[in-house]
Amino acid sequence: MITVQMVLDCLIEPVGQLNKTVDTLKSGREDAEVRKVAVVFMTTYGVIKQAVESGVDLIITHEPTYYNHMDEVEWLSGNPVYEKKRALIEESGIAIFRLHDYVHSYKPDGILVGMLKQLEWEAYANPAQMNLLTPPSSEQHTVGTIATHLKNKLGIASMLVAGDLDLPVKRMGLMPGASGGRAHIKFLGTKEIDLLIVGETNEWETNEYVRDAADMGFAKALIVTGHQKSEEAGMRTVVERVRNAFPELQVAFIESSLAVQRI
Amino acid sequence: MITVQMVLDCLIEPVGQLNKTVDTLKSGREDAEVRKVAVVFMTTYGVIKQAVESGVDLIITHEPTYYNHMDEVEWLSGNPVYEKKRALIEESGIAIFRLHDYVHSYKPDGILVGMLKQLEWEAYANPAQMNLLTPPSSEQHTVGTIATHLKNKLGIASMLVAGDLDLPVKRMGLMPGASGGRAHIKFLGTKEIDLLIVGETNEWETNEYVRDAADMGFAKALIVTGHQKSEEAGMRTVVERVRNAFPELQVAFIESSLAVQRI
Repeated sequence: MITVQMVLDCLIEPVGQLNKTVDTLKSGREDAEVRKVAVVFMTTYGVIKQAVESGVDLIITHEPTYYNHMDEVEWLSGNPVYEKKRALIEESGIAIFRLHDYVHSYKPDGILVGMLKQLEWEAYANPAQMNLLTPPSSEQHTVGTIATHLKNKLGIASMLVAGDLDLPVKRMGLMPGASGGRAHIKFLGTKEIDLLIVGETNEWETNEYVRDAADMGFAKALIVTGHQKSEEAGMRTVVERVRNAFPELQVAFIESSLAVQRI
Repeated sequence: MITVQMVLDCLIEPVGQLNKTVDTLKSGREDAEVRKVAVVFMTTYGVIKQAVESGVDLIITHEPTYYNHMDEVEWLSGNPVYEKKRALIEESGIAIFRLHDYVHSYKPDGILVGMLKQLEWEAYANPAQMNLLTPPSSEQHTVGTIATHLKNKLGIASMLVAGDLDLPVKRMGLMPGASGGRAHIKFLGTKEIDLLIVGETNEWETNEYVRDAADMGFAKALIVTGHQKSEEAGMRTVVERVRNAFPELQVAFIESSLAVQRI
């Protein structure tokens, strides 16, 4: 019998138990049997419902369930959306494990590995720092052609760009997710990159830094792809990891649409 | 002679000195003479350059100068974009005052007042809670028609929407800027509103809450306008305030384009 704890151990093992982490079991029991696993970017209500209906015992999610990074719930008590989601989870008995800090702590970062693969950029990556990407000098890229590539490979309808679309790109940084303004700006300020590609920003931080840099005449640009599409393909690597460790389990990725549409 | 400190006193007076605030003098001297004032949403490099060239002595800005809410600069030491911006500011001697916490603490909130005026929604506002808006029952609104109104009145090219564009809107909330997921979600969870309009979100917070709410069948929707356009018209009220207090000063608003374009 495979238990929830055995699957968690397999996910934690490459890093070792972290003392401070948001990667905890959000629902369900460690000793429950697992036969079917779903890997997801985010445990939306729709995704959980689909998982429950298809007999999934364990969901492995990259992002939180209750609309905040720590999955704190006291402040949501009595909130009708929270209560309905919690009821669905509790009544089903489904186990939900967050896999965020561990997968980012794999060497190399499991999300980054999956994104590079999806983008067919594995050969660009600097082995010592895999989010620093140098295309071969025979290739001609601009911010605009990179944006088109991202759209095609990641299925993105539109994205945000700061700086000049025609700027030649000789080296770029790839920071999936929302690493924060300081991490973005330190990367831009210390690495010889023309373009930084990120999932999500605070508008007054990275966006304004790159606007200023471009207005000063520095050859800098920023692409903001949206958070979900910047990491989703990375979580697919977790499907392989669990399948390889437990060939007898059914493991599948459940995709979801974006939370918002642009009009 | 009008000094920087006299203008600051006029801006602070309606609230009284706050103990903890980001609203400090970021550059320049309190005792410097002021003849020309610029009010801006954000002290971008381009805006500061324009202000310096046109002889402005004091810039009043809603958002930070150095890409973080506290305007901390130690972490930016040696960063070429930071150093170039700091040099422009120091060499010019221009005074920069951040007006964020005070203007939001005016009764009613100065930013909200300006936004309601720009949107021609003053009559919708609940006098006891001015960010709670109830159009008269004779008017027929949907999320889609409200989005079109926002685009027209605020000059927004495109915006993000969660929930159904055809949802009828009988009551809505207006929270300019980036108030944070908890503030957004508490408002949505406790007020009888169909639609919440905000400036900026973290994608995994408000966006996902409203996606879940809509998927559960609750009549809830979200519009994310972008941060700058959600507050810029609110800062225009500051022009009037300074002009009224000091009729002999030249006071003008300097607009800027958005930091990012959508492609």
